[in-house]
Amino acid sequence: MASQLRFDAPAIERLGVPAYNWWNETLHGVARGGTATSFPQAIGMAAMFDDELLEKIASAISDEARAKYNALSKEGDRDIYHGLTMWSPNVNIFRDPRWGRGHETYGEDPYLTARLGCAFVRGLQGRGETLKAAACAKHFAAHSGPEALRHSFNAEVSAKDMEETYLPAFRALVRDAKVETVMGAYNRTNGEPCCANPALMEKLRGEWGFEGHFVSDCWAIRDFHENHKVTEGPVYSVTKALKAGCDLNCGCTYQHIMNAYAQGLVTKEDISRCAVRVFTTRYLLGILGDEGSEYDSIPYETIECEEHLELAHRAALRSCVLLKNDGLLPLDPAQGGTIGVIGPNANSRVALVGNYHGTASRYITVLEGIQDLTAGRRRVLYSEGCALSADRVEPLAQPNDRLAEALAVAKRSDTVILVLGLDETLEGEEGDTGNSYYSGDKADLLLPESQRLLMEKVLELGRPTVVVLLAGSAIDLEEAQERADAILLGWYPGAGGGKAVAELLFGAESPSGKLPVSFYRNDALAAMPAFTDYSMQNRTYRYYTGKALYPFGYGLSYGTCSLDLEKAERGGASVRVRNESSRPLEEVVELYLKDEGSPLAPPNPILCGFQRVRLEAGEEKTLLIPIDENAFTVVNEQGERIPGSGIRTLLAGFGAPDKRTEELTGRKAVSAPIK
Amino acid sequence: MASQLRFDAPAIERLGVPAYNWWNETLHGVARGGTATSFPQAIGMAAMFDDELLEKIASAISDEARAKYNALSKEGDRDIYHGLTMWSPNVNIFRDPRWGRGHETYGEDPYLTARLGCAFVRGLQGRGETLKAAACAKHFAAHSGPEALRHSFNAEVSAKDMEETYLPAFRALVRDAKVETVMGAYNRTNGEPCCANPALMEKLRGEWGFEGHFVSDCWAIRDFHENHKVTEGPVYSVTKALKAGCDLNCGCTYQHIMNAYAQGLVTKEDISRCAVRVFTTRYLLGILGDEGSEYDSIPYETIECEEHLELAHRAALRSCVLLKNDGLLPLDPAQGGTIGVIGPNANSRVALVGNYHGTASRYITVLEGIQDLTAGRRRVLYSEGCALSADRVEPLAQPNDRLAEALAVAKRSDTVILVLGLDETLEGEEGDTGNSYYSGDKADLLLPESQRLLMEKVLELGRPTVVVLLAGSAIDLEEAQERADAILLGWYPGAGGGKAVAELLFGAESPSGKLPVSFYRNDALAAMPAFTDYSMQNRTYRYYTGKALYPFGYGLSYGTCSLDLEKAERGGASVRVRNESSRPLEEVVELYLKDEGSPLAPPNPILCGFQRVRLEAGEEKTLLIPIDENAFTVVNEQGERIPGSGIRTLLAGFGAPDKRTEELTGRKAVSAPIK
Repeated sequence: MASQLRFDAPAIERLGVPAYNWWNETLHGVARGGTATSFPQAIGMAAMFDDELLEKIASAISDEARAKYNALSKEGDRDIYHGLTMWSPNVNIFRDPRWGRGHETYGEDPYLTARLGCAFVRGLQGRGETLKAAACAKHFAAHSGPEALRHSFNAEVSAKDMEETYLPAFRALVRDAKVETVMGAYNRTNGEPCCANPALMEKLRGEWGFEGHFVSDCWAIRDFHENHKVTEGPVYSVTKALKAGCDLNCGCTYQHIMNAYAQGLVTKEDISRCAVRVFTTRYLLGILGDEGSEYDSIPYETIECEEHLELAHRAALRSCVLLKNDGLLPLDPAQGGTIGVIGPNANSRVALVGNYHGTASRYITVLEGIQDLTAGRRRVLYSEGCALSADRVEPLAQPNDRLAEALAVAKRSDTVILVLGLDETLEGEEGDTGNSYYSGDKADLLLPESQRLLMEKVLELGRPTVVVLLAGSAIDLEEAQERADAILLGWYPGAGGGKAVAELLFGAESPSGKLPVSFYRNDALAAMPAFTDYSMQNRTYRYYTGKALYPFGYGLSYGTCSLDLEKAERGGASVRVRNESSRPLEEVVELYLKDEGSPLAPPNPILCGFQRVRLEAGEEKTLLIPIDENAFTVVNEQGERIPGSGIRTLLAGFGAPDKRTEELTGRKAVSAPIK
Repeated sequence: MASQLRFDAPAIERLGVPAYNWWNETLHGVARGGTATSFPQAIGMAAMFDDELLEKIASAISDEARAKYNALSKEGDRDIYHGLTMWSPNVNIFRDPRWGRGHETYGEDPYLTARLGCAFVRGLQGRGETLKAAACAKHFAAHSGPEALRHSFNAEVSAKDMEETYLPAFRALVRDAKVETVMGAYNRTNGEPCCANPALMEKLRGEWGFEGHFVSDCWAIRDFHENHKVTEGPVYSVTKALKAGCDLNCGCTYQHIMNAYAQGLVTKEDISRCAVRVFTTRYLLGILGDEGSEYDSIPYETIECEEHLELAHRAALRSCVLLKNDGLLPLDPAQGGTIGVIGPNANSRVALVGNYHGTASRYITVLEGIQDLTAGRRRVLYSEGCALSADRVEPLAQPNDRLAEALAVAKRSDTVILVLGLDETLEGEEGDTGNSYYSGDKADLLLPESQRLLMEKVLELGRPTVVVLLAGSAIDLEEAQERADAILLGWYPGAGGGKAVAELLFGAESPSGKLPVSFYRNDALAAMPAFTDYSMQNRTYRYYTGKALYPFGYGLSYGTCSLDLEKAERGGASVRVRNESSRPLEEVVELYLKDEGSPLAPPNPILCGFQRVRLEAGEEKTLLIPIDENAFTVVNEQGERIPGSGIRTLLAGFGAPDKRTEELTGRKAVSAPIK
């Protein structure tokens, strides 16, 4: 039975139980398991501010996972990445903009993360008789870098920050979305490793009533003795984890369970309690015994079917964020002339997909998207411009060996589209390929030096220039903000995302994504706590006292909507929104609440509701937007959530209601008192 | 002046001579220097058997090189890969099928190599007042692996093999095409390093009258003392090279010229003789002084212009070789159903471009080509199938982790297209990325094990299956020949080559490429001399006594042409060729000559003429095909070319006239005596 508590559980021939590998990943599409529809990276899907679409996407993802499971298990393949237990979503709070895994999350806000995480879990798990797939809330808790230290690090988190920031999403996923799995983080939190942390386990199973199974992060239990050094060796790590309620081990330390048992460290009951939990999940999935699941008939052809590809395309359209536009955008698709597409991410497939990705059968880079959209009307000149981060493309050349080409292209172009940014080799997870120096984290918020030089030299030419950024985290774009005509943030838009980026540039639709993270200037880091300091002080839009370059919730469109706050009540706000432009628009109406009376409330208004809306030219709609109940509470230093003051303001707008948003949009949020 | 003999020649301010970097590469498009039109790899262009098209291609390449030079030198960039001295073509003989750089060559036949090499040189250099670019015949001589030993190896070459096999192309490029540059090889030949080999230099400058400049391969002069150990140190290596007539040093050993001079080892005359030669090349290019060149006005927009992209597409169409077809091809583009595209090269950009490649602004993989061509009519399912050579795609998975997916796809497909092969990481040059164990050479002629298993398992299913091979050298395809319905060899077809491959599969045109190398079964290696043995015994179609899997010159089409040899005279043959099919075809009429009376003649008939022809359905043409004068000579053991016997047979057909060609095509070459 003990062997069933390992992620690679062997078959039990005697009982007719087949082998099962628990490890699968579906962060933004079935990952690492072959061909699958590729959706925008999680951070990009967060920028949609659209839980309805996100649930549909997650449902499409678990359809594809089922289709794979159905077909591949028939071929006898029950290996890793082919099962139905998904170690997604990642609902950690993107606390520090340097964190390499931040792009796996839904950003920096607890309410947004909770709401989107719940939608994703509901979509993955389905609403059927059996679970379509088992989702997983990870990494519990608190976990957000630094990557280099994750195996040995102790996050010291105040009771207030824990309740106010780090736990709300986990609680919502457990209580509201009934997530089937929770994964413990690598690090310690307040002294105890997260995969065997009594205080956290008490929250989870006691207070929240979690009934699913708990899985360790991969090889995290080995960290107990090897890195955290809180136990004397494998049998003690096993004992600690089992006793604490970690049911399943990603890694191989649970191979020592029977040793621990032989030494009297764990009991049969300890083992069978875990076994019951993991078998319950398999049972709920309908993959034990003969009954099966209503999802057993999902055919292989579901994978990358037209409907799913269209969902991915829609998601990419909604996720891109227009950060600046002096009127150059949208470009006129009918116009002739030459477009210069320049930059290391312009024709990069890698930059389309972020990390934890599957394999697409079609990649459309930004360059390809532009070529396809302008075919026959515009000449498109291309230069790679520079290497992504190295100082030259060709090892034997002088530094900046593509700069002259880039300038030659720019000078011959009526419009320049500079495609810059990062990819999973520069921001990602410790141990993966890439940025080995910082173990996947960013050293700062600047673009790599090669790209800064390229941008500076191209912008100096003064051609009409759009900067397209493919990246999963805050980048200091001050130079572009000063000198480029327009900036479009594409995140990692999914394998086919270059099509959506091109369509937005050429005005097939209006951009409508909003930032789920603050974009700071690089010098903001100096005013923040150390990367290793989990205090929320001066971090994220709720606590940041400076001016962000682009605030949380911010994002322009190609038109203007007016807004009226008609009613502000605890049950919800009534907002009238009108498209003042002559083109269809999508917008996200965002509600923020400021508790003016309580010193325990965060210094800035906090997101408490949002709704995406589509409006035809001139159309007006009245939206009834529910307000998060948590917004009416505050958290004291003991971590208790208590009623806030009665003096509160509700603000409605398109972005966090601060001075910088006003500067950038020329408009103030509308507001009203609310009890 | 001595500094001007280095590849990275500095400016001479006093004389107004700008800096110049001599190193550029244009093997199949401007390489390593940014965006450029990507033509099929050299071995693929050889398979066109079309010197006319090759000359046009080379001319397009040097137009692009000029366009780059014109634009980038104005930006102050005079760095490596941006100049006008091209270290292409590679006219070494592809002697051993394991050689990693074989795909840079025009194959295994001296006459074909000479003729195509001359066409390439003429195209690159142009026919203007100034040289459009300077071409380079490399690597002189003899040079064809093993890569692992190239810096220290001594090739022992008989006088007969030298004259019969290794030198004809070099002689033709010097004498007939007036190539401006010759590059010495890394290895020694018959004891002396090729960059300072008196016997070879005497041939080159004495016998053949070469008037251009001679350049060392990169860091080859350092090899004299470091690896060949034929000199005592850098000054002696410099001395040896300079005295022998090596004018230009790719590398940095010529930094010691002034030391050698100070020690009285070389004279001012030695130095200035070289300097005159290299400055003559710059003068001929019109890049010294104020006169300029008629090519100074080639605009930047020439790069990847429509005409060049069309040339590349045409080349890809003509280079693919149909190795087997039981009637499955061409596929019907109008038919519905599902196509399964499977394999590690199906969606690989890397496999499109071979080595020494530039950057394309559009890649079209085989999968993309098929998707585009069948869009809206067929569902295309895709599986990577396996890693290119590793035993699994995902490090944590079990071996063959894409096999179940591949089988699932194949079972659901009406037609399966398996796209297999190699890329530059598996066959290439010592020191480049890749196959480090064999330094870029192949260990054998087998596909990587992962691909063999994939092919075996997919073929076992018995679905209608086409194998598409992207590779640059002979691969043992016996299993596919036995069990697949069709096999198309795409070589490395250039960045956009997937479109051509798809068009051929679906019959937009008929394949017409012919093998410029024999495709052996793997066991043929055992019957050949060692890889290090430069004897031609039992090597290449001229000397091979076994049956090749696919012989030199072989390649099927979608129709049948009949052939009559109307006249066979020394001045040329008159061949009547008729398209017996109901569709347009391109074919290559190949002439072979067998000297039946001389024991000095190679055992098998040798290629002595060819002509590509296009014939509409039912059309008939009479071709007058010149015959190579060398074919009427034989070479004695002293390496003297002497008249052959008077008893000769001329054979005309579509492939080397041997039993295997007859088996595969069901047809015999037509023949006639010739005096």
